[in-house]
Amino acid sequence: MALIVQKYGGTSVASVERIKQVAERVAKFKMLGHQVVVVLSAMSGETNRLIKLAHDVQSPPDTRELDVLVSTGEQVTIALLAMALKDLGLKAKSYTGAQVRILTDNAHTKARILNIDEQHLRSDLQAGNVIVVAGFQGVDEHGNITTLGRGGSDTTGVALAAALKADECQIYTDVDGVYTTDPRIVPEARRLKTVTFEEMLEMASLGSKVLQIRSVEFAGKYKVKLRVLSSFQEEGEGTLITFEEDDNMEQAIISGIAFNRDEAKITVLGVPDTPGIAYQILGPVADANIDVDMIIQNVGANNNTDFTFTVHRNEYTRTLQLLRGMQAKIGAREVIGDDKIAKVSIVGVGMRSHVGIASNMFKTLAAESINIQMISTSEIKISVVIDEKYLELAVRVLHKAFGLEKAA
Amino acid sequence: MALIVQKYGGTSVASVERIKQVAERVAKFKMLGHQVVVVLSAMSGETNRLIKLAHDVQSPPDTRELDVLVSTGEQVTIALLAMALKDLGLKAKSYTGAQVRILTDNAHTKARILNIDEQHLRSDLQAGNVIVVAGFQGVDEHGNITTLGRGGSDTTGVALAAALKADECQIYTDVDGVYTTDPRIVPEARRLKTVTFEEMLEMASLGSKVLQIRSVEFAGKYKVKLRVLSSFQEEGEGTLITFEEDDNMEQAIISGIAFNRDEAKITVLGVPDTPGIAYQILGPVADANIDVDMIIQNVGANNNTDFTFTVHRNEYTRTLQLLRGMQAKIGAREVIGDDKIAKVSIVGVGMRSHVGIASNMFKTLAAESINIQMISTSEIKISVVIDEKYLELAVRVLHKAFGLEKAA
Repeated sequence: MALIVQKYGGTSVASVERIKQVAERVAKFKMLGHQVVVVLSAMSGETNRLIKLAHDVQSPPDTRELDVLVSTGEQVTIALLAMALKDLGLKAKSYTGAQVRILTDNAHTKARILNIDEQHLRSDLQAGNVIVVAGFQGVDEHGNITTLGRGGSDTTGVALAAALKADECQIYTDVDGVYTTDPRIVPEARRLKTVTFEEMLEMASLGSKVLQIRSVEFAGKYKVKLRVLSSFQEEGEGTLITFEEDDNMEQAIISGIAFNRDEAKITVLGVPDTPGIAYQILGPVADANIDVDMIIQNVGANNNTDFTFTVHRNEYTRTLQLLRGMQAKIGAREVIGDDKIAKVSIVGVGMRSHVGIASNMFKTLAAESINIQMISTSEIKISVVIDEKYLELAVRVLHKAFGLEKAA
Repeated sequence: MALIVQKYGGTSVASVERIKQVAERVAKFKMLGHQVVVVLSAMSGETNRLIKLAHDVQSPPDTRELDVLVSTGEQVTIALLAMALKDLGLKAKSYTGAQVRILTDNAHTKARILNIDEQHLRSDLQAGNVIVVAGFQGVDEHGNITTLGRGGSDTTGVALAAALKADECQIYTDVDGVYTTDPRIVPEARRLKTVTFEEMLEMASLGSKVLQIRSVEFAGKYKVKLRVLSSFQEEGEGTLITFEEDDNMEQAIISGIAFNRDEAKITVLGVPDTPGIAYQILGPVADANIDVDMIIQNVGANNNTDFTFTVHRNEYTRTLQLLRGMQAKIGAREVIGDDKIAKVSIVGVGMRSHVGIASNMFKTLAAESINIQMISTSEIKISVVIDEKYLELAVRVLHKAFGLEKAA
């Protein structure tokens, strides 16, 4: 008998029919003798509907009240699933975030979990109940309702699994696991049986959004066994996320190709190559609450240097205006930008023990005449920025070059 | 400076536009220097939508989970109104029933308020906030969400006014007060400036549903000054509900004509006129959870008697079947019924000190050849059951006979 936490996303509870299907899946696990805690998102579309309603009233909406509003989305689905489980003859009980007491800080709309009081859940589990918990929400020390931000239901699931010392946390989504890359671009893309925590983190942060990053970090910190599964398939073991490299039985050098077309590039040309110039440029950007991803500073000639960085594409125009406004002050010759770029990354823990990975990547892209505009590396990934129009081609040739279509 | 509790029903918060109008009305009271607590219902239609959703999943739905589900309706409106108030530059804060801590018993879907912890509200009011409270909901001693049943938002408003010792509890509805009768039937019907608590109770229980009965009882018990107003009119003082007869400045003998076409009549003919026969007939009816309203037993001849009572029209067929099933056992000659009846009542505290009211009522109906099938009286009302087809005529002639179109 195991204790399993199962998290179902918005598409898995999008209708009465789907909610009944989730109930049947839960019933199967109960029949096998397991204890089950279910974490739910709101019905897909509901959170956006509520946010729009809020903006119709006040724009931007007060964040405390926005949390009161949007937290109703999960409250609806937990009640309906508890009913569906009872309709199947199971014992079930729903809990809002406040009812569990998922204690968070008071950073409304992006709160962080501080503590989970799991005592009530444990006694209800021992009494044979399926526990159905509202994801994405908590409560601060003063009893104000908080939410964890987009994708926060994954975090709720992992945090509950950690608090209850669950045997496994299963994340049910509309994909049946983590793939070597997006199958819509590379039909040969293959589901990974296992992926390490660090690889998953890189894949998630690079746009392969199967899991919310914070939930993966949380799982890593508390060593929660995390599995990604499809809620639309009867069978399948999904992808297990492991925390030891040795657990990765496939031992591929490269696990996957991630990509991201949400970024834009800003280049500040001809600034004086003096100490503190990076701060002079990026300080005001940070002050304007603009997140910077990749940063490159070329060694300059004539005491001048070029400085390039990427921001989210939504911030492109604002960043460009900001820097042009201070061009004279920092002594730059010109500020230019490009929002038609894409970032492609190869990810794999095998990189640590293998050489020649980067050169293989660059050679593969060169063979297709794809120009590399920026490069950034970490211990387990190499990212390049290229012209957006070459994105699909780059992903396809890299997938093939590293033999990802073949099981290791 | 006064402390005012204002309750707005579902039609008053049915859209973003309406919610903004409520915010503007609240702002006016704030500008006059008053402290304001607002109690809201769900958007009209929302509670029914949620109940239907529940029945699609489980029928009948588990009541604990139904309360978790439907309580989201008010949680949405309180958040939106708090935003709208902030958008007008006011300080505002929403509270769910659980956040106030409106403690109830655990009778899900029809819970009763046991206690209200008003300390937080009071300090938030003193800090200049408009307090926006979700009506209709509370929490039991174990933290389970409860609801007070249909119309329960009125009760929340009155209970909060009692707990906070508010100067006035204003109930905003789609009518601008309590009328001498339904203006759709009698165009001359007149809004009452005041009505006594007892008259209001009789009017409400007889179908003039301006306020939920329990809220009026509650107001009476705690001597809350209750005023019914229209949320769709800019001006108007509505109807004040008073608790002392002397407060009723209008001093009319009859305050209004109430009516009800929701009942049906059952007659058990020729039962033995022996002690206990009423219990033999009504015991099984009560056991079947059927509410009985009027009861009449005629003096019998030949040791026989006829027994007549009324039930809700929805229970007519079931009651008839129930009694016909036990006809032989109770020794009745026949069980007959009629669901085409209506109850018309004249209500007024002036009846206590005036004679001839009943005979005036009967004479007025006789003059129109309206046959009276049943009569029941209390200290401040006289009700008659008549053929449904005469309902409008009866209400019109009684309204005129008692001079209700003229201000007292």
